[in-house]
Amino acid sequence: MEIESAAQGKLGVFGRCKALPGKAKDKIFDVGKSVKKLGKDDPRRVIHSLKVGLALTLVSLLYFWRPLYDGFGMSGMWAVLTVVVVFEFSVGATLGKGLNRGFATLLAGALGVGALHLSSLFGKEGEPVVLGILVFLLAAAATFTRFFPKIKARYDYGVLIFILTFSMISVSGYRVEELLEMAHQRLSTILIGGTTCIFVSMFVCPVWAGQDLHNLIASNIEKLANYLEGLLRTRKLIAGFGCEYFQASEDKDCIEALKNDKSFLNGYKSVLNTKGTEESLANFAKWEPGHGRFLFRHPWKQYLKIGVLVRQCAYQIEALNSHFTSDIQAPVEFIRVIEESCTKMSSESGKVLKSLASSIKAMKHPESANEHVENSKAAVKDLKTALEAAGMGDSDLLAIISAATVASILVEIVDCVEKISEAVHELSQMARFKKVENTVSPETKPKQMLLHRGSVKPVLDGDQRPDHVTITVLDTASIDSLENVNVKPQGPKKPIEEV
Amino acid sequence: MEIESAAQGKLGVFGRCKALPGKAKDKIFDVGKSVKKLGKDDPRRVIHSLKVGLALTLVSLLYFWRPLYDGFGMSGMWAVLTVVVVFEFSVGATLGKGLNRGFATLLAGALGVGALHLSSLFGKEGEPVVLGILVFLLAAAATFTRFFPKIKARYDYGVLIFILTFSMISVSGYRVEELLEMAHQRLSTILIGGTTCIFVSMFVCPVWAGQDLHNLIASNIEKLANYLEGLLRTRKLIAGFGCEYFQASEDKDCIEALKNDKSFLNGYKSVLNTKGTEESLANFAKWEPGHGRFLFRHPWKQYLKIGVLVRQCAYQIEALNSHFTSDIQAPVEFIRVIEESCTKMSSESGKVLKSLASSIKAMKHPESANEHVENSKAAVKDLKTALEAAGMGDSDLLAIISAATVASILVEIVDCVEKISEAVHELSQMARFKKVENTVSPETKPKQMLLHRGSVKPVLDGDQRPDHVTITVLDTASIDSLENVNVKPQGPKKPIEEV
Repeated sequence: MEIESAAQGKLGVFGRCKALPGKAKDKIFDVGKSVKKLGKDDPRRVIHSLKVGLALTLVSLLYFWRPLYDGFGMSGMWAVLTVVVVFEFSVGATLGKGLNRGFATLLAGALGVGALHLSSLFGKEGEPVVLGILVFLLAAAATFTRFFPKIKARYDYGVLIFILTFSMISVSGYRVEELLEMAHQRLSTILIGGTTCIFVSMFVCPVWAGQDLHNLIASNIEKLANYLEGLLRTRKLIAGFGCEYFQASEDKDCIEALKNDKSFLNGYKSVLNTKGTEESLANFAKWEPGHGRFLFRHPWKQYLKIGVLVRQCAYQIEALNSHFTSDIQAPVEFIRVIEESCTKMSSESGKVLKSLASSIKAMKHPESANEHVENSKAAVKDLKTALEAAGMGDSDLLAIISAATVASILVEIVDCVEKISEAVHELSQMARFKKVENTVSPETKPKQMLLHRGSVKPVLDGDQRPDHVTITVLDTASIDSLENVNVKPQGPKKPIEEV
Repeated sequence: MEIESAAQGKLGVFGRCKALPGKAKDKIFDVGKSVKKLGKDDPRRVIHSLKVGLALTLVSLLYFWRPLYDGFGMSGMWAVLTVVVVFEFSVGATLGKGLNRGFATLLAGALGVGALHLSSLFGKEGEPVVLGILVFLLAAAATFTRFFPKIKARYDYGVLIFILTFSMISVSGYRVEELLEMAHQRLSTILIGGTTCIFVSMFVCPVWAGQDLHNLIASNIEKLANYLEGLLRTRKLIAGFGCEYFQASEDKDCIEALKNDKSFLNGYKSVLNTKGTEESLANFAKWEPGHGRFLFRHPWKQYLKIGVLVRQCAYQIEALNSHFTSDIQAPVEFIRVIEESCTKMSSESGKVLKSLASSIKAMKHPESANEHVENSKAAVKDLKTALEAAGMGDSDLLAIISAATVASILVEIVDCVEKISEAVHELSQMARFKKVENTVSPETKPKQMLLHRGSVKPVLDGDQRPDHVTITVLDTASIDSLENVNVKPQGPKKPIEEV
């Protein structure tokens, strides 16, 4: 923008005028393109705009249609105002604002009438003073409550409307004689406006915040999966060129290609900053009634918990990603030691996340994820065993350090992914996701479950070198009871309270 | 909460009633405590609440004071409404909302009057139909523009008020005869309300969004510095116990102490999620006039750029932090190799960030940061040299991998910190921070500057082991011109446009 105007400055006034029509055409073309893009990215935006128009036109009937106008008169204005300020993109946000507005108006109206009565006891002189003091105190106190995070999140608009209505009633009531009628008209028109909003929002192509949150979490998990599997896919795609990360390569072009593969390199980046969106969607979702596959008290809070874990995994991926830009190539013999297990960690973690994402989408119990979690943990063990076994001899430390870091961060990622898997299992339990029929043969099943319930931790013998590992089985449930897991829903490992 | 109510459920109705007074007392006590905490954390919250009360009481005079009431009548209500919805925490937000409201009302009012004239051409029957269609179209189109990110960020409220005013004028104008007088009264009372807000907001203990953004960025940088220096401080504090990370230790208690040192472990975590706050503060700051040490077109956008880099550094620290919880201890001989340079990287990076933060706070040119940047880069070189020199013989890879990862991430952090330093230098140039007197003797200076302008990169001989490094000097400015840097402000390395 600034560069543009600097260039224009050089052209002089005449040149600028001459260039204007062409520029304006370009500008209009650009705007048109971005309008089209906005609409295409999410067609619900277009529908939402039309819905707002529809709701406004509906309440305009209060004016246009004589019988209605005779009933409400100028108060119909409040209905128009209500529609404009209450109508939001999602049903939850609209409901939240509408209910906040309704209840706050009711409460503040009652308090305002009370304040008028109170002040009238102080005589003609004292009345405005008392009213002024009351308005000051209530406005200040109510404004302060808006700083409480919980109130800010759910009732901010209600407190605003409370202050507004209280001030208007107690101040204008001082002059208006037919106060009660005014209050009644205002309340009923707000009710009409609010109901129109909620009706149009819920029954004309509704946008559910809960559904959006559900989809957002699933797609965030999928983005991480794409990155982890992309690492592998890129390897395969360009394997012919010998351009694999875990292979010392001299082909600079290939490394560039890998660096520039924006599709998987940058997909996960949007996950880093979705905290705000997730939280506001969860707040809106709490206002929504049951819809589609979601019941009224769907465990929205658990989505936030999953969101936190997903972001933690994204931070690790961010750190991992910055190591791929390193120019130092590890020696071939070291790569050979870690290659297989690193590939497996990455691909199995990707598979876990893929299966979690698709099970969230389909609202089915994430059965197949467990197997991949075990595989990825086995890969971590393999890596440790391989590293213990390998003596590096005289190969140089500087060269291996970058590849070692990649391996080390991948181990952390496996850990994160396991936590995400646990949280999704909890969600599945809380939201009663459908269990899939058990297709694994009974012989292999118990062993796998047993592994899932245990933790593998290398034990250090002195502080020098670990030479054995112990497997601690946390849950000593017998194989019989493990078999039953799929028959009736049992509690997950940790007790969960629905909040 | 849910646990509480579950417990209550067991008590039965009688027990619950009995427990109520005590519970209520506790609850009130809790609320009181959190009110006190909110006020203590930021006393400006209390002041803001009182300011809102003051502004509202001031506009109430429109009703209470007879000469004013005679002038405005019931339209005074709009002034009250304006104060409640426009008054925001910071001057920038209040100004933005006030200006948006004023201009949108003006524009929509004019368009509304035009729409009324247009529709009156269609006769008594056609008028409401044409008006209805116009309201529908304009509301839908304006609602759609709210999806443009740039409009959403700065003019969202204006568009809302535009829709509101247009609908109200064109709809109620159909019935109200004295339309122009109504529009005039509405506009002038909005003006009074808006001016009151802006006046109180700017002249009674003002809260400047720009100042807040400035402080936020400085404090975020400081939090990262605290972490990096905290690594070192903890080392020193408990060095007597031999509880240093870079030293193989058997003292489990010490490691626990290090793990539990919440003050430096968790300070940086808040940096991970400040993107939203930074962006809205920058948007508000753009509305603000010059204040204190900030001129009108202060480069607020540069703060966002620094913010992005600071967050990237925080992601690396997050990854680093997760490696300190690893239980594997590295072998002593490996620790000895990397200890010194790792300590130096961490402490020098911390010093860079500390000096950047304090130079931002004092709005002084970050002179001393350069030296520490060079030191930290020298430490990276030292690490590489040490690693090249060290042959590991038969020591085992698994044990060194965790410590190697810490070292490797620290190298990335040094890189991030250098980028932050560059961005702060750019800010210093753009915002004309004060230059500090040159206290370094002229003999040592040019060499140091020369180093700062070059980049050190190990060159790989084949793909096996790097055995030499080249120093590329990007800027071949002579020592004479380098000497001049402190005398007159020259442009930084890259050309900067003020946006």
